[in-house]
Amino acid sequence: MTVKSSLSKEIDTICAISTPSGEGAISIIRVSGDNCLSVLKKFFYPLADNAYPLKSRFFYTGKIHDPFIKSFIDEVACIYIKGPNSYTGEDMFEIYPHGGVFNTRYILELICKIGVRLAHNGEFTKRAYLNNKINLIQAEAILEIIRAGSLNTLLIANNELNGLLEKKIKNIKDDYIYLLATVEAFIDFPDEEFKDIDSGFFQTARDITDSIEKLIESYKNYDLNRKGLSVVIAGKPNVGKSSLLNALLKKNRAIVSDMPGTTRDYVEDSVFLFNKPINIVDTAGLRESTDSLENEGIRLTYGQIKRADIIIYVLDAKDKLVDFKFAHEAFKNKSVVFVLNKIDLLLQDNLIKRKDEFICTLSTEYNTECMHTVFISAKNSIGIDLLKNTLYDIILKIESSVKEDSTITTLRQKSLLEKSYDLLKKGIEIYKSGGPIELISIDLREAIDCIDEMIGGVTNEDILDKLFKEFCVGK
Amino acid sequence: MTVKSSLSKEIDTICAISTPSGEGAISIIRVSGDNCLSVLKKFFYPLADNAYPLKSRFFYTGKIHDPFIKSFIDEVACIYIKGPNSYTGEDMFEIYPHGGVFNTRYILELICKIGVRLAHNGEFTKRAYLNNKINLIQAEAILEIIRAGSLNTLLIANNELNGLLEKKIKNIKDDYIYLLATVEAFIDFPDEEFKDIDSGFFQTARDITDSIEKLIESYKNYDLNRKGLSVVIAGKPNVGKSSLLNALLKKNRAIVSDMPGTTRDYVEDSVFLFNKPINIVDTAGLRESTDSLENEGIRLTYGQIKRADIIIYVLDAKDKLVDFKFAHEAFKNKSVVFVLNKIDLLLQDNLIKRKDEFICTLSTEYNTECMHTVFISAKNSIGIDLLKNTLYDIILKIESSVKEDSTITTLRQKSLLEKSYDLLKKGIEIYKSGGPIELISIDLREAIDCIDEMIGGVTNEDILDKLFKEFCVGK
Repeated sequence: MTVKSSLSKEIDTICAISTPSGEGAISIIRVSGDNCLSVLKKFFYPLADNAYPLKSRFFYTGKIHDPFIKSFIDEVACIYIKGPNSYTGEDMFEIYPHGGVFNTRYILELICKIGVRLAHNGEFTKRAYLNNKINLIQAEAILEIIRAGSLNTLLIANNELNGLLEKKIKNIKDDYIYLLATVEAFIDFPDEEFKDIDSGFFQTARDITDSIEKLIESYKNYDLNRKGLSVVIAGKPNVGKSSLLNALLKKNRAIVSDMPGTTRDYVEDSVFLFNKPINIVDTAGLRESTDSLENEGIRLTYGQIKRADIIIYVLDAKDKLVDFKFAHEAFKNKSVVFVLNKIDLLLQDNLIKRKDEFICTLSTEYNTECMHTVFISAKNSIGIDLLKNTLYDIILKIESSVKEDSTITTLRQKSLLEKSYDLLKKGIEIYKSGGPIELISIDLREAIDCIDEMIGGVTNEDILDKLFKEFCVGK
Repeated sequence: MTVKSSLSKEIDTICAISTPSGEGAISIIRVSGDNCLSVLKKFFYPLADNAYPLKSRFFYTGKIHDPFIKSFIDEVACIYIKGPNSYTGEDMFEIYPHGGVFNTRYILELICKIGVRLAHNGEFTKRAYLNNKINLIQAEAILEIIRAGSLNTLLIANNELNGLLEKKIKNIKDDYIYLLATVEAFIDFPDEEFKDIDSGFFQTARDITDSIEKLIESYKNYDLNRKGLSVVIAGKPNVGKSSLLNALLKKNRAIVSDMPGTTRDYVEDSVFLFNKPINIVDTAGLRESTDSLENEGIRLTYGQIKRADIIIYVLDAKDKLVDFKFAHEAFKNKSVVFVLNKIDLLLQDNLIKRKDEFICTLSTEYNTECMHTVFISAKNSIGIDLLKNTLYDIILKIESSVKEDSTITTLRQKSLLEKSYDLLKKGIEIYKSGGPIELISIDLREAIDCIDEMIGGVTNEDILDKLFKEFCVGK
């Protein structure tokens, strides 16, 4: 572990293409370091006369001139940003060439020829961290914003960037420092009986463990949000599970036929349900079968049901009501939507009757709070929107049940909290077993280090390297 | 045909993502139109106090706020550019969000919700054209810069953007106007004998046809530059053609074995040779065979040789010198590099002797000006750099042989020149056959229209739509 200020700060000038690779309308080349202005002068010719020295944060248009072949090669926009009020805290400039692959790379190589080094992954953000423009949690938040796949994750990452998590972490640290001060007071005044420690100490320790537990729990929720909830479509053969998958995805993803047992391997795809990503899995129909391939499919179906967040159990609306007892165990603690399909084949009278029957049966079998019923015709796209709304309500409920003020978003944060938590628990155990007070102090100091490391006040270079390698080049 | 100013100018505000799709460090969202400032106020909150009204061309950092869900969703940079000194000539702004796919799309959708319309392909550049910021040749040059695959094409497109081609086209137009004035003078003064037309007229007509011919020729060269020259590797079986392909590509692209006739289908790949794109084709070995699959491969090889710009003819350096007479026809007017492979299997003395022998044989068989000889070992990467240098020299020579001051770069330009050329020729024919002078005048006027249409002074909306559809959205 090292304090941040002792980390080697690289001060050479670095460059990278910051836009995704491929052809677009405009690209961005980003440069940061002490030599920005002198580098820029060698190849950027503003259209305005006497533009040098360039004004900071002003949008110039001009030409790129390759001094090695003495030719103009592109017309671009350029912004020079004087440090320390820049992203990295250093002098920076950005070039906005036409968005071709070749011309953009050519300009990048030209900048390198002039004496600028290609940046490593995340090196701009690493410099922002080293120059105290952002802390590590904010650096991670930037990565999470880029990777966000839903509004929820985007909002959480924004809160993190805005310092909400940092505030929470600092509160935990304050509590830790109170504990440490209490313990060390007993070291300084060994005459006092350590057993006489006041109840505030234990209350604070409990506050810390509660907070940490909630934060660790919040990671699960965030991770789930990032990846999307898993929705599994199950049911007997030939009730229209694959048709339903296709209707939800709005494409012909799964093969549909009249033959029972058409689906063997489970079929998986992702879709956004009103801004929320979900993974939908279509499974092999559940029945007793002698076909070994089909039985393997059925075994996989039970595995999928076990892992699902939401189960869509499809039934044929015109069939006799089947016995769901088999599913008691499988559906426990899950949100289940019973979908009665093929209502297009029922007469209106029968449909109403069937609905009443079904809901009555269901309520005698299950705790209906987690159970929902929707009547549809997958083939004719009837009831699909209602089903989507039902699924959306369930997702909101699952999310709110684990909702936290602050959310951690990375495994790094989670494992540091876990380590800190374990150290605190260990210290309390030592106290309870009458162990030496100095050991408790050591554990508490380490636990505080973990909290510091979360924000990045104390860290080591390997961890930094690992963290910033996850970024793309140019960030 | 319509004069440009009569074309309907759309003045609503448009938006698009201008960076390639995919995850990067930074994205760009571009907006153009009258409502820019009022739109911006609804969702962009600069970090600086009292920033509104935003200064034109100043790089602001701030937050994106979604007023519909009342949440901040990203931290971004933003530049507002007041028209008419902008790319489109209208008020514009650009937002630079973190380069994620979801957050970027979210902001774009937010801007649409606020009342901005999604732009069509090339609509920003189309507006630049309609607002007289650029002419059509320059619009095409921008597209060519984005698509440039080599330094040569990039430089040509830049010249075009800088007005070099426009100047040439205007000279042609001036010449045409002299012809037209001469002809119309005879219409206005019908007493004069049209046969007495002076020799300056014909000289000018010849100047025009010469210029147009050269420009049309330049298109071939440009197109060739864009796509890259075609280099075909041919030779008898098992001389190491596929090994050479792999050595040039620096990857295992073609299957290599000791068995003669391994390659059947030709194998094609592209590579940059010092900034120049070339397409390399490895072919089936040439020999008499009874295997029908192999014979089909050999037939394809001859087809490839016919289409090639450069032929690499590979021989086994330790074999007896073969008879190349078969190739006389195939190699006619082509640049050929004889590559003697497997020199690792020759003793040093033999190598020198073999070189002398080979070059002597070659010079008796061929016009050696277009013939080159390189000794290599593809397996051990000996001589590959020398071969590359040789290829590069040949490419430079081919390019310089068709080099033009001005180059046209699009089929649109070419077909307008061809049409203009045909009309001029037709007019001259009418004159020679003593046809009515009024018809000549009509042809000349049409020929001038073609020239005007090249630059975009006169055009029609279908052609504009077609041209700008080739652009990506956001340009």
